[in-house]
Amino acid sequence: MPDPEPPKSRVTLAQLTDFIASHFPQVQEGNGPVTIEFISRRAAVVRMACDERNIRPGGTVHGPAMFKLADFAVYVSILGELGLGATQAVTTSMTINFLSRPVAADLVAHARLIKIGRRLAVAEVEIYSDGKPDMVAHATSTYALPPERPKA
Amino acid sequence: MPDPEPPKSRVTLAQLTDFIASHFPQVQEGNGPVTIEFISRRAAVVRMACDERNIRPGGTVHGPAMFKLADFAVYVSILGELGLGATQAVTTSMTINFLSRPVAADLVAHARLIKIGRRLAVAEVEIYSDGKPDMVAHATSTYALPPERPKA
Amino acid sequence: MPDPEPPKSRVTLAQLTDFIASHFPQVQEGNGPVTIEFISRRAAVVRMACDERNIRPGGTVHGPAMFKLADFAVYVSILGELGLGATQAVTTSMTINFLSRPVAADLVAHARLIKIGRRLAVAEVEIYSDGKPDMVAHATSTYALPPERPKA
Amino acid sequence: MPDPEPPKSRVTLAQLTDFIASHFPQVQEGNGPVTIEFISRRAAVVRMACDERNIRPGGTVHGPAMFKLADFAVYVSILGELGLGATQAVTTSMTINFLSRPVAADLVAHARLIKIGRRLAVAEVEIYSDGKPDMVAHATSTYALPPERPKA
Repeated sequence: MPDPEPPKSRVTLAQLTDFIASHFPQVQEGNGPVTIEFISRRAAVVRMACDERNIRPGGTVHGPAMFKLADFAVYVSILGELGLGATQAVTTSMTINFLSRPVAADLVAHARLIKIGRRLAVAEVEIYSDGKPDMVAHATSTYALPPERPKA
Repeated sequence: MPDPEPPKSRVTLAQLTDFIASHFPQVQEGNGPVTIEFISRRAAVVRMACDERNIRPGGTVHGPAMFKLADFAVYVSILGELGLGATQAVTTSMTINFLSRPVAADLVAHARLIKIGRRLAVAEVEIYSDGKPDMVAHATSTYALPPERPKA
Repeated sequence: MPDPEPPKSRVTLAQLTDFIASHFPQVQEGNGPVTIEFISRRAAVVRMACDERNIRPGGTVHGPAMFKLADFAVYVSILGELGLGATQAVTTSMTINFLSRPVAADLVAHARLIKIGRRLAVAEVEIYSDGKPDMVAHATSTYALPPERPKA
Repeated sequence: MPDPEPPKSRVTLAQLTDFIASHFPQVQEGNGPVTIEFISRRAAVVRMACDERNIRPGGTVHGPAMFKLADFAVYVSILGELGLGATQAVTTSMTINFLSRPVAADLVAHARLIKIGRRLAVAEVEIYSDGKPDMVAHATSTYALPPERPKA
């Protein structure tokens, strides 16, 4: 459960949503559209709408869509925490475990920053099919943070 | 360097390419088109064509495209090794390290199976920008193999 | 926070502790002694006592001690959940992130099973220095489960 | 196969072995003794002697011993490449896949640096039972490099 405390940077959900829409419009391409649902202290919740482009025939887990959702949820949680000066943060690694086949529903990713260092951020992500109790995928991810970042 | 020995299943490159085209046409969507270049004993080489959908503004590494390429290259190497009876193999995990920003060029993935067990296959993947010496990404991946699979 | 519900197998903490002492005495060798503190539904808490053998000169993170603790905590949570018939479960992979240098204190690992399938279990582990709020390491781990296991 | 070219730092095998013996004597404790067998451009080969402390009853893979060997082999390859000024390098993550049960023999780890950046090094490690063709474990690991390091 994300901490209800606001993120340190005081970026609002509306500001972050606008920023992504103007700077990263391509995040909406290729898979189901994504929506930032919630940001809080060191955490974010992001939804990817159910979309035929996410699912392989037979319902096999479509890994790349979940990878993209997990990666984006971590990026959002970093921007939320550190502010829009951290946009140059880049993914250096991700480990993703696919746990069960998601049903044809929205996917909801809960990202949580477990370390914010000077140079690296580490996050954990849980992905659920909307309304279902079992996790469909779990990821841990590392981002390299920009060396000198403007204050949020 | 892939072993030049043919895969155990004796599936040919043409058969595998046809199979993917008819059963997984959606692998060509969303990113640059992919081409299976080579299959051999426990290995495969797959190319993803340079495409604006693969690259983020500013040239930031587009992780999901590389994830998809790595995942597909492992799947191809499993089908090559075990035959078309293994199509129900599913990714259970992937760890990917992004090493350097790929230039605007084709991406070439070299997948190598380091374990083929009864229930699990483990693979390693190196991704290069075409014609460049430095690896841009490295992945290890685990697939669950179908419990009873038809002989190749 | 572990779910306070008892594990499905109804193995008790005392039974599990006795079992480990008689079947895996070597887990107490090489590093600080380990104690199972708590088992519950799909979760376990395991402590590794502060010990000079865990710490490198200068306080550098001693990865192998934390790896061992994380691995053991997952094993305990599997035995707790599935019962002592699952002792043949073996680690197939672990990803561990070292987040901050642990101080000279006991290490406490909280393991949580995020998937129990027929063939694989996947767990997540958080390691803390006793009494400190920041996570010092985070791990995800996969175990292959024995194909036919006696009922707990 | 390691590149036979010498490492950039021109540290010799004898210098590196002496350095480890005087600064990290504890690496010889807890498991089979380790020997650096070979260093070359961005690579190292390290052996862990067969030792009852490495093996669990029944021959189950003893993960922590292999984790320690993999981690040490990467550290050695970093020192070989960057020189003894890089001793403050610390492991930030490791992903290890256990592929087959090692027989009672020495373990030999081949580490290869796949990235040496300003701030991070990424390595890949293959572990074999001495004299056997099949890999018993595979690891990828990331080290944080000291920000300002003396010239080798």
